[in-house]
Amino acid sequence: MSLPAHEPTPATIGALLSTLRARTPLVHSITNLVVTNSTANALLALGASPAMVEGGEEVEEFAAVAGALVINLGTMDEARAQAMRLAAAAARTAGTPWILDPVAVGVLSYRSRIAVELLQHGPAVVRGNASEIRAIAGMLGIADQAGGGRGVDSTLQSDAAREAAGALARHLHCVVVVSGAVDYVTDGAITAAISNGDAMMSRVTGLGCTATALIGACLAVTPDPLTAAVAGMVFTGLAGEMAAELASGPGTLQVALIDALYIMDADLVARRAHLVVRGG
Amino acid sequence: MSLPAHEPTPATIGALLSTLRARTPLVHSITNLVVTNSTANALLALGASPAMVEGGEEVEEFAAVAGALVINLGTMDEARAQAMRLAAAAARTAGTPWILDPVAVGVLSYRSRIAVELLQHGPAVVRGNASEIRAIAGMLGIADQAGGGRGVDSTLQSDAAREAAGALARHLHCVVVVSGAVDYVTDGAITAAISNGDAMMSRVTGLGCTATALIGACLAVTPDPLTAAVAGMVFTGLAGEMAAELASGPGTLQVALIDALYIMDADLVARRAHLVVRGG
Amino acid sequence: MSLPAHEPTPATIGALLSTLRARTPLVHSITNLVVTNSTANALLALGASPAMVEGGEEVEEFAAVAGALVINLGTMDEARAQAMRLAAAAARTAGTPWILDPVAVGVLSYRSRIAVELLQHGPAVVRGNASEIRAIAGMLGIADQAGGGRGVDSTLQSDAAREAAGALARHLHCVVVVSGAVDYVTDGAITAAISNGDAMMSRVTGLGCTATALIGACLAVTPDPLTAAVAGMVFTGLAGEMAAELASGPGTLQVALIDALYIMDADLVARRAHLVVRGG
Repeated sequence: MSLPAHEPTPATIGALLSTLRARTPLVHSITNLVVTNSTANALLALGASPAMVEGGEEVEEFAAVAGALVINLGTMDEARAQAMRLAAAAARTAGTPWILDPVAVGVLSYRSRIAVELLQHGPAVVRGNASEIRAIAGMLGIADQAGGGRGVDSTLQSDAAREAAGALARHLHCVVVVSGAVDYVTDGAITAAISNGDAMMSRVTGLGCTATALIGACLAVTPDPLTAAVAGMVFTGLAGEMAAELASGPGTLQVALIDALYIMDADLVARRAHLVVRGG
Repeated sequence: MSLPAHEPTPATIGALLSTLRARTPLVHSITNLVVTNSTANALLALGASPAMVEGGEEVEEFAAVAGALVINLGTMDEARAQAMRLAAAAARTAGTPWILDPVAVGVLSYRSRIAVELLQHGPAVVRGNASEIRAIAGMLGIADQAGGGRGVDSTLQSDAAREAAGALARHLHCVVVVSGAVDYVTDGAITAAISNGDAMMSRVTGLGCTATALIGACLAVTPDPLTAAVAGMVFTGLAGEMAAELASGPGTLQVALIDALYIMDADLVARRAHLVVRGG
Repeated sequence: MSLPAHEPTPATIGALLSTLRARTPLVHSITNLVVTNSTANALLALGASPAMVEGGEEVEEFAAVAGALVINLGTMDEARAQAMRLAAAAARTAGTPWILDPVAVGVLSYRSRIAVELLQHGPAVVRGNASEIRAIAGMLGIADQAGGGRGVDSTLQSDAAREAAGALARHLHCVVVVSGAVDYVTDGAITAAISNGDAMMSRVTGLGCTATALIGACLAVTPDPLTAAVAGMVFTGLAGEMAAELASGPGTLQVALIDALYIMDADLVARRAHLVVRGG
């Protein structure tokens, strides 16, 4: 079969990056307490304008004016959950695209319920590891696979959630990303596999959260969530790979990854993105 | 005209730094969730003793014993707002000087109201970007300039808020700092212009918050808020400039800036501070 | 006298590190807002799997499945205090070992009361600086020494709390660590003195919190809290010492310390641990 017109390619991803830098989109983040600084720095380095507006008193006003909204369940309590509900609802009303990162869903029952609630507000993208994506599909009754989570890390390879990801994307009419050594991005019809990255990235906290935030930045500058999701995963994986070439360990990797996002450009993406797209 | 006796100079700033290192003042910070770590590290590197005491149950007790108090509106909710009210009131009662950083005021209505409330507790210094300072002056009815903010960043150059800053300083009887490529520090009569820094600093999250915190540390060791504010801006700008000479991007810049604060001394300030002071 | 069989040695600590890397224990952290990122990265670099689960809605569920629980009082309010109470109680019920870091206890009365409450849930280890350990012993009525704290840093050398530490360990039937230029670890009968580390470590925020977290990781893989506490202090001190050899200031030290934890191994511990153990 021939691929649809909006198939993401290194060239379209490179062009998206140029657009992002020209527009410096406002990215509204409600993320976890571990990654606020690293997420904001990753967004700034790529060329977006991050704003961590998290209080229930402020999120509706800001979600309506932001270019995109990022909701990350990494550290939860009822006040944050309520801010997330308000923000997601306001984003949907305003037409602000948003992405959900269901950290540790399937392991902790409270946040699992919150995730299911939030999904009703129509995210453009859901990004998780294999355990989280399988857990969500299981909770929604569209797959019968066990999540297999343990803490915030997956015990599964990403390909163990490919079926669940496709089913979830079709059920929610959104794009689903399963990250791992190979990242899978699917809208339920087309699936992209990205094999950039480095094993040491799993020893730095919150790089999955970084990927989610970068997808958020990309959502603000393209109407195509599949391209946005592929772009965010390529930028993160490629930056990690470039950083690993310079790093002596996860400390220097975290710092070098921010520098790599800053120097990322269309040429680097064209030369180094490892991206395979398949229809059907 | 001749300049007043307390005109800040590289020499007085260098002397202040020596005093600060000898006294290691306790700096009580109620800051935002993005910059807690980087702010604490900047204060430690310069020679102060930071304490992030943020709960409403504790802030009055600590503001009364601290050398200075820093209040930063970067991430707001009602619990934090209430802690800030209690801390600012306790600081005023105890004679602890304090500084307000009105992040994104003018963009978000909730925190704009909180900022106006907090100003009633007599800050020694208010530091913001051009949009934030113009927004505050507008809310207090002492200037009719639009804020021009967007997210947490200003869309204006700092000189667009010079008039508002002077009017605000005279109205509040405090020092006002407008940061930007050139930083302006004014008490409403004397204005200092500082042109240290590097463009890449705007790609690292929270360096404005760092400047605010360092001014706080300086407030703890001098009775002159104008000198404290100029010193904090010089230390931040000069550290950023030194870091940019070593950095490959904003990741390495953030790390090198902390090192630069650590090695900062009176000689570096004397040789590299770009400071012009004008009366009237 | 002859030393007991469980006397910690560089060899037992090196073996513990190998076990830790093989098991990647889940370490449940309820820590302060300043160090969430650096603590998670230190745990990942050493080989553990950190999870910052802090909401009262989730802590009981997670403390019961985690390998160890870390409670750090660095930033307190009533919601966090309540989450800590629930987590500590759940840990005790489930048999999950836990460690308390009583940051600034003795300086702030609210958190001092919370610390005394939490101690009733039977921590395996308490780690603080000399002021904090003396303050706790004083509050429990088992020593009449003044705490001597000021902010979050101790104004005392660690040996000023050796007596209080021994008395506290015997009273609470736990291991007590007093950190400083020399770290003392005692169960009330045996005392280990560790003299790794570097003076510049005190200019990086939260390295005491890092030590506490690493002890937590060690508690998850040994039934002997004395060995776990010695191991955590050796790993932190040695990593800091290795980092200081590469660092230009506290910014690069913080980054290099994470790299050093990543490359730490039994051979480095055997060659460089400065550890003296005395019975009685």
